[in-house]
Amino acid sequence: MDTSVKNVIVEKAKTSKIDQVDFNNLSFGSIVTDHMMVCDYKDGAWETPKVVPYQPITLDPSSKIFHYGQSVFEGMKAYKDTDNNVWLFRPLENQKRLNISSKRLAIPEIPEAYFMEGLKALLKVDQQWIPQTEGSSLYIRPFVFATGKGFHASPANEYKFIIACAPSGPYFSGKVKVLIEEKYSRSANGGVGFAKAGGNYAGQFYPTQLAVAKGYNQVIWTDDNSHEYIEEAGAMNIFIRINDTLITSPTSDRILDGITRKSLIELAKDEGINVEVRKITVKEVVEASKNGTLMEMFGAGTAAVISPISAFGFQEKDYELPELDKSYAALLKKRITDIQYNRAEDKFGWRYKL
Amino acid sequence: MDTSVKNVIVEKAKTSKIDQVDFNNLSFGSIVTDHMMVCDYKDGAWETPKVVPYQPITLDPSSKIFHYGQSVFEGMKAYKDTDNNVWLFRPLENQKRLNISSKRLAIPEIPEAYFMEGLKALLKVDQQWIPQTEGSSLYIRPFVFATGKGFHASPANEYKFIIACAPSGPYFSGKVKVLIEEKYSRSANGGVGFAKAGGNYAGQFYPTQLAVAKGYNQVIWTDDNSHEYIEEAGAMNIFIRINDTLITSPTSDRILDGITRKSLIELAKDEGINVEVRKITVKEVVEASKNGTLMEMFGAGTAAVISPISAFGFQEKDYELPELDKSYAALLKKRITDIQYNRAEDKFGWRYKL
Repeated sequence: MDTSVKNVIVEKAKTSKIDQVDFNNLSFGSIVTDHMMVCDYKDGAWETPKVVPYQPITLDPSSKIFHYGQSVFEGMKAYKDTDNNVWLFRPLENQKRLNISSKRLAIPEIPEAYFMEGLKALLKVDQQWIPQTEGSSLYIRPFVFATGKGFHASPANEYKFIIACAPSGPYFSGKVKVLIEEKYSRSANGGVGFAKAGGNYAGQFYPTQLAVAKGYNQVIWTDDNSHEYIEEAGAMNIFIRINDTLITSPTSDRILDGITRKSLIELAKDEGINVEVRKITVKEVVEASKNGTLMEMFGAGTAAVISPISAFGFQEKDYELPELDKSYAALLKKRITDIQYNRAEDKFGWRYKL
Repeated sequence: MDTSVKNVIVEKAKTSKIDQVDFNNLSFGSIVTDHMMVCDYKDGAWETPKVVPYQPITLDPSSKIFHYGQSVFEGMKAYKDTDNNVWLFRPLENQKRLNISSKRLAIPEIPEAYFMEGLKALLKVDQQWIPQTEGSSLYIRPFVFATGKGFHASPANEYKFIIACAPSGPYFSGKVKVLIEEKYSRSANGGVGFAKAGGNYAGQFYPTQLAVAKGYNQVIWTDDNSHEYIEEAGAMNIFIRINDTLITSPTSDRILDGITRKSLIELAKDEGINVEVRKITVKEVVEASKNGTLMEMFGAGTAAVISPISAFGFQEKDYELPELDKSYAALLKKRITDIQYNRAEDKFGWRYKL
């Protein structure tokens, strides 16, 4: 397979929808840009990426995406600084993880050049769509799914890799109240929990609906065997601060290797914060809350960046988190977004200029 | 919501593809009939089912099926007897299970009348497609997936329920050699393993490919925590015969409540076979093989009916199953297919005449 991309084919949209968009009132992921990148896998190889007008996809009803869940995705953002320069944040980490997810789902991996050149060509064509308003960015959604036909339960022989973009405001507003889950689970040992696989998300919706009905915003996932260990917060990684120590669960085959997660770990260490990457029990968190040493809990992910937790529920009881003047969540969010928006030095080399 | 269906809308295809099909050489699930049933969920309700010419589906790239894995399906068959009568096998069990799966995936449930009337209208229009050749049947695939738009990780607001059909020959040919899995897992406690959710299948493909590369046909799934308990065989339930006792794992939130499985349990009991529905360890099966009491292992499911296992691999060693003149697999397969094809009395009331 030729893994270099000489020319991404670009077919521009005849008209733009950009004038219809209020960039000062963006929701998350509901408005799409004028174009998308499409790359098809046929006859054992990925074809040359194309940038085309954003348009519907036509598929046979027997396409395996409708039956056997072969789908993976990534979440990224493009940021515009005050000089109109456009930046990505650690994009090669997304490219690598997409392939890690794909491999586990028996989806053919995508050469780095196809991912990066396709992405760059798309962002060049749609650069006017990258918001400059505070806290806003262009959300980028690379995704791959099985288009091959047939009702036999086996991997497809054809796939589609698409990158679509949505100018977006902040993901969540305000602090969230979470429920520590003791019945439902997100993933199995030896399963696909570490992958950004579609099925991982569908399985979370129902338990989350039950939590919402009880007055919570999100579920804190625990291990499926004992429900004693805290693993993820909704669709995000989780950080817990006890006294001045910041703790997060180690990645595993059940836990996503989040790019925001690992960046926050480095930034916290850079701030001189004591960081522990280790298993953390529900019991420890409840005890810390009772004895007043539980200072913060927050989710971390590309979409929301950092999502502070105001309270958690466990076994029919709610535990409030304190209000802090100087929280790690606020400090780390400022550090990471200052790098992302090119407002501060990037000593780690995470920014990627377009 | 009006849960009765007065009239299924029928739009017939202008031409039929049936003359192009060799009914004596049917593979499994690769040829589709002339029509399909489509039922859309919009504005909080399922619309009236329609039978339309089999045709491609057009979707927005942000449709949640491509991102968050909200999809469930069923597998059923229609059988034609020698008098050209058409029969289904326990169809209401499929209808109920589709809703059980849907509920867990936060997909709106489908009223029984919509499922049954839509299915009947489709089979009436495509009745010429139901094969009469020995061992063949019309494979029926009801499936539901999220069509609602948006990149936000939340349940969709629109869905599509489709029934498509494929005239099919036998699913597997010959006995299969299986590998007892000790690393990868199919499902978690509190997860979606009991549901016919797309994501459960995508997660099986890669471990199965690894097993195939080692010379096996399928994987035997064990529990994700200890890998000590045998749970499923590929995408089928599993039965194990030690001496004259037939053992199968109890259903759970990790194990599918198979319709073939529960029918075989009843038929085996009816034959006077000692049936035990209980947890069974890998150790017990290996011991039974070593001391000569392991007589049979077979998978059970709608597509393959019964799939006899010739050998299993465990920890780098292969264990052969004996060749039996009178196997439970053959006896039970004859009993169940004789009922399905209306060749024998149906004392359980499982047949459903169309």
